[in-house]
Amino acid sequence: MNSFGSLFRVHIYGESHGSGIGVLIDGVPSGIKLTLEDFTIDLSKRKSGKLGTTPRKEDDIPKIISGVFNNFTTGAPINIFFENKNTDSKVYTDFKSHPRPGHADFSATEKYSGFNDIRGGGHFSGRLTLGLVAAGVIAKKILNNVIFSSEIESIGLLDKTKFSEKLENYLIETRNSGDSLGGTISLTIKNIPIGLGEPFFGSTESVISSMLFSIPGIKGVEFGAGFKGTEFLGSKFNDCFIDKNGKTSSNNNGGINGGITNGNDIFLKVAVKPTSSIFKPQETFNFKEGSIQTLKINGRHDVAFLLRVPIILENSVAIALADLYLQNTKSIF
Amino acid sequence: MNSFGSLFRVHIYGESHGSGIGVLIDGVPSGIKLTLEDFTIDLSKRKSGKLGTTPRKEDDIPKIISGVFNNFTTGAPINIFFENKNTDSKVYTDFKSHPRPGHADFSATEKYSGFNDIRGGGHFSGRLTLGLVAAGVIAKKILNNVIFSSEIESIGLLDKTKFSEKLENYLIETRNSGDSLGGTISLTIKNIPIGLGEPFFGSTESVISSMLFSIPGIKGVEFGAGFKGTEFLGSKFNDCFIDKNGKTSSNNNGGINGGITNGNDIFLKVAVKPTSSIFKPQETFNFKEGSIQTLKINGRHDVAFLLRVPIILENSVAIALADLYLQNTKSIF
Amino acid sequence: MNSFGSLFRVHIYGESHGSGIGVLIDGVPSGIKLTLEDFTIDLSKRKSGKLGTTPRKEDDIPKIISGVFNNFTTGAPINIFFENKNTDSKVYTDFKSHPRPGHADFSATEKYSGFNDIRGGGHFSGRLTLGLVAAGVIAKKILNNVIFSSEIESIGLLDKTKFSEKLENYLIETRNSGDSLGGTISLTIKNIPIGLGEPFFGSTESVISSMLFSIPGIKGVEFGAGFKGTEFLGSKFNDCFIDKNGKTSSNNNGGINGGITNGNDIFLKVAVKPTSSIFKPQETFNFKEGSIQTLKINGRHDVAFLLRVPIILENSVAIALADLYLQNTKSIF
Amino acid sequence: MNSFGSLFRVHIYGESHGSGIGVLIDGVPSGIKLTLEDFTIDLSKRKSGKLGTTPRKEDDIPKIISGVFNNFTTGAPINIFFENKNTDSKVYTDFKSHPRPGHADFSATEKYSGFNDIRGGGHFSGRLTLGLVAAGVIAKKILNNVIFSSEIESIGLLDKTKFSEKLENYLIETRNSGDSLGGTISLTIKNIPIGLGEPFFGSTESVISSMLFSIPGIKGVEFGAGFKGTEFLGSKFNDCFIDKNGKTSSNNNGGINGGITNGNDIFLKVAVKPTSSIFKPQETFNFKEGSIQTLKINGRHDVAFLLRVPIILENSVAIALADLYLQNTKSIF
Repeated sequence: MNSFGSLFRVHIYGESHGSGIGVLIDGVPSGIKLTLEDFTIDLSKRKSGKLGTTPRKEDDIPKIISGVFNNFTTGAPINIFFENKNTDSKVYTDFKSHPRPGHADFSATEKYSGFNDIRGGGHFSGRLTLGLVAAGVIAKKILNNVIFSSEIESIGLLDKTKFSEKLENYLIETRNSGDSLGGTISLTIKNIPIGLGEPFFGSTESVISSMLFSIPGIKGVEFGAGFKGTEFLGSKFNDCFIDKNGKTSSNNNGGINGGITNGNDIFLKVAVKPTSSIFKPQETFNFKEGSIQTLKINGRHDVAFLLRVPIILENSVAIALADLYLQNTKSIF
Repeated sequence: MNSFGSLFRVHIYGESHGSGIGVLIDGVPSGIKLTLEDFTIDLSKRKSGKLGTTPRKEDDIPKIISGVFNNFTTGAPINIFFENKNTDSKVYTDFKSHPRPGHADFSATEKYSGFNDIRGGGHFSGRLTLGLVAAGVIAKKILNNVIFSSEIESIGLLDKTKFSEKLENYLIETRNSGDSLGGTISLTIKNIPIGLGEPFFGSTESVISSMLFSIPGIKGVEFGAGFKGTEFLGSKFNDCFIDKNGKTSSNNNGGINGGITNGNDIFLKVAVKPTSSIFKPQETFNFKEGSIQTLKINGRHDVAFLLRVPIILENSVAIALADLYLQNTKSIF
Repeated sequence: MNSFGSLFRVHIYGESHGSGIGVLIDGVPSGIKLTLEDFTIDLSKRKSGKLGTTPRKEDDIPKIISGVFNNFTTGAPINIFFENKNTDSKVYTDFKSHPRPGHADFSATEKYSGFNDIRGGGHFSGRLTLGLVAAGVIAKKILNNVIFSSEIESIGLLDKTKFSEKLENYLIETRNSGDSLGGTISLTIKNIPIGLGEPFFGSTESVISSMLFSIPGIKGVEFGAGFKGTEFLGSKFNDCFIDKNGKTSSNNNGGINGGITNGNDIFLKVAVKPTSSIFKPQETFNFKEGSIQTLKINGRHDVAFLLRVPIILENSVAIALADLYLQNTKSIF
Repeated sequence: MNSFGSLFRVHIYGESHGSGIGVLIDGVPSGIKLTLEDFTIDLSKRKSGKLGTTPRKEDDIPKIISGVFNNFTTGAPINIFFENKNTDSKVYTDFKSHPRPGHADFSATEKYSGFNDIRGGGHFSGRLTLGLVAAGVIAKKILNNVIFSSEIESIGLLDKTKFSEKLENYLIETRNSGDSLGGTISLTIKNIPIGLGEPFFGSTESVISSMLFSIPGIKGVEFGAGFKGTEFLGSKFNDCFIDKNGKTSSNNNGGINGGITNGNDIFLKVAVKPTSSIFKPQETFNFKEGSIQTLKINGRHDVAFLLRVPIILENSVAIALADLYLQNTKSIF
């Protein structure tokens, strides 16, 4: 179940500390121009190195193994591979017996009876989102007029209006205290065609949320007015149509009615939990010794992984929408 | 795309004012005892009639068309049908030209080029959730030790602590003013096995949210501490393991780590928007005449559809978990 | 796994001696004219009553439960139901303990631990092919210029060139001796667009054969020159292109190269085994008593079920091709 | 649609003259011992070099990119890659304008609007069957007691009883005349559990044939007595049960009743067409010049590709059966 999509199909593989990670993308129409340079900007947005992110540095240079010929997509599956170069696995060895709180160590070890590769989180690592970003670059080419813009709305207790003033210190203090931060991010999508999405299980919200909750650390997704909107009266919540293109006076439904896009901006927000890896000592159960013990995590980690999430959010939603777009065959025959 | 699941597969069909609605359930193991009485309690929980719900009354008696023999499931597809009896379609005729705000009228009419059956919302009607409730009854039999309990957390601006005191009046006043209410509902799931869910696109959150966003009116889904949890430091958010069964001291992850159940309660919350159909006059665009006009909706509607959602929430999540449960083949070979 | 297709999706349900059988068809574009009369001709071709077929007579009148409004498809799932009227189940009761040779009695009873409905073959009955014929009627409307023509090539030892002269006696003699016949049927499909089918697992042959082997009694499928063609030299087998439309001088590949239609006629042949139900006494193992016993089958059966297969062949292949047709989104972007 | 399977999922990628080809295998249970040596025997059986096969030699050494840790499967997707080393593309350049008879050149060029990589057949090359063989190695480990044995039944006009005497000359003569050969191959599968396969579209024959017709050059598939069996009377064709394990006195159904395995040997036969690439001059249409021309194919090709097919046949069917095996969850609950 590392696969997403019915026409634009994305398959993810690899481990954080194995030979590399990658993505196999099938169902891409032929004739789309695609070069390595197309990936540069989006991949660089995901990179670490800035304040609040991990000091692990990978060059993240994609290698196109298949499906592209003479700089155009051929219609055959596109395999994009990222080699792991900067791995340091010795610090992970014991996490099967005393799993890190917040991580998949315990649940994955139970699920796979201990055969899972736990180094760096293995297949559960945030590093696999590289593949989502790469696939999203192609998805955006399919959705060629659609515009994605994401924005960090809050980090920990800090609202975006206070970022310029207070964020730097907040990140430094949190890092120094060996702790971590989460936050919320919004995504606005403009120029989306009317009519994407399918009734019930293929609703636009279903498809997008299913994708978003596969990003490590996402714990909430809301569309339009979301949770806040439950406090409105219907007469306020309802978005009234005001012109012949279906434009609405408000957008509390986030551009989606009955699971189907109505041509207004898709607007959604996600909750990203604080990075699970913290340097502060924590308690965890030692399954070998049968007692609670104090765990001190070493290694290299993001103070606030969410700083790297906006491009992942954009591109993963682009994957979901490209699939809906290709599904949306003409309804009159 | 009216289908859900890979092993426990649910297909939904029907229209609000057609001959009936139903659900086709495939992949049900043989040998499960199943009689009409098994559906009675859950279906009655979804029924209208109470304060705040629509006066349209349907007997909602299921008819098992196939897949059950001598009161046991046979392993063949189970088709459960609900006849429509109490339909009144004359009030819906014009909604293709002047679509109701908040409804799928506009987006569906565009998608299906006007061939959609718009009477009573047609295939987009909340009435199709009957099929989800029925399928969930079977799903719960597959998950036979798992306990589902849902609770309305808020209605409009009213918190659950004030329901006994203020809800009745709130509903009456809202109804009298021709308006409607939404709210939030929580779901707690106990005794869920460890190890359900698949990495990435098959994460427990992905599968559940994909299901939940197919319920009409759901606009937000969060797990564990959800949006509120983004304000926590990592050291607070992380759930520490405290015994050999994987029990955690807190449950901010909602029983799911890395997309995989960790054996603690699954806890989630949904945002249900206010009922779109309101009696208060609203503005909408008249696509035939090319101008904004005032729309007065008649018919029979819920003031607060969310009052009927708890059992839909339980049973639809049961469907999602039954599918994950059947997928969870043993990991050591 | 009673489902077929990725865009044009067909789900089959029901049992031979239950309340009825049916088919749920999802992914049908909206705006296709569809009335009950559209089904009449194809369903009548499948009917029994002629020499060599079962005396069980059903009126086989379809009931459209959903997905059609004002005689046009709406884009929502179409449920077509056929009531069982003429059932006679008392003769089937013991087939779990002494299974009929050639039937699914033994394998299904093992698979479903005896909970399967064995009356009339239950869910394994040829009666479920009614749903395939009905779905095929819609598929043919999607493939509106494509022409299907099937022909019985042989019955038992009789070649089609001798049918007019000898078939009637052959069927009567076989019936009188309490035995049954199989045969081969060919299908020619004209005006199929170039480019249908997908590489590897979605090859046109894969998709069609997967469908055909779901028809009870089909034991072989070959395309173009098929098994006979393995005796040709490559220089004879290869079909040379002779005009700008891709017409070939021969058609040993059956209109398919590399799994993809080349615009020439699709030509295929199937092997239909002799009807398994025969009146002649046969030996079978009595699993209750633990010994071989003589079995005498009563009931009503076709001497040569294949006489009713041509329309099933046509329409089931139409389903497969309609799915490939809808998948074949334009390749240049 | 380069994907196969619902639980044991195989995704194929790569091109004949690109950087390499490979296979991504998802749904493999954790804890299966797997080393590079496990692939050696099966891959060597597929290799060229023997009389009648192409002189192109590739070392065909698999590289396991992901999903295996400490020589055991982890439960995560297994990516197996084969580098292309011995490519010679200059001879393929013109096949879009004058397509080779029997190949996918024309149909693929039409489908992909000329953007397909046509070098060496590109994604349509028989080289991609390497991935099937590799995935089959793992499938066979899942089916650990099942025994596969394949046999070439005929080559061109030569029956297997005459191989020792006449095959060598036949191959040499055919090669010298610039021509090619096809043939038939049988596969016998022992120790298969009872109850695999699903009714209708998931029948064992459907799943296997769907896989087999994805192997380049396969033009016919039959089970049990197949086409020959259509000449039998029912009383001869029917396989009588003779012991408490369901053993039958004959096996005309090829081990499958009603689409479900009955525990007897699965027996099937395939028709492999003669290799399409021949050195003899052939006529084809030159789409650039608009006239028929004589085509002389150079490059390196198999005289009889079917000589390399037996292991592909075994392992690809193993993939199909492994998927059915994992699906076959217990039927009593």
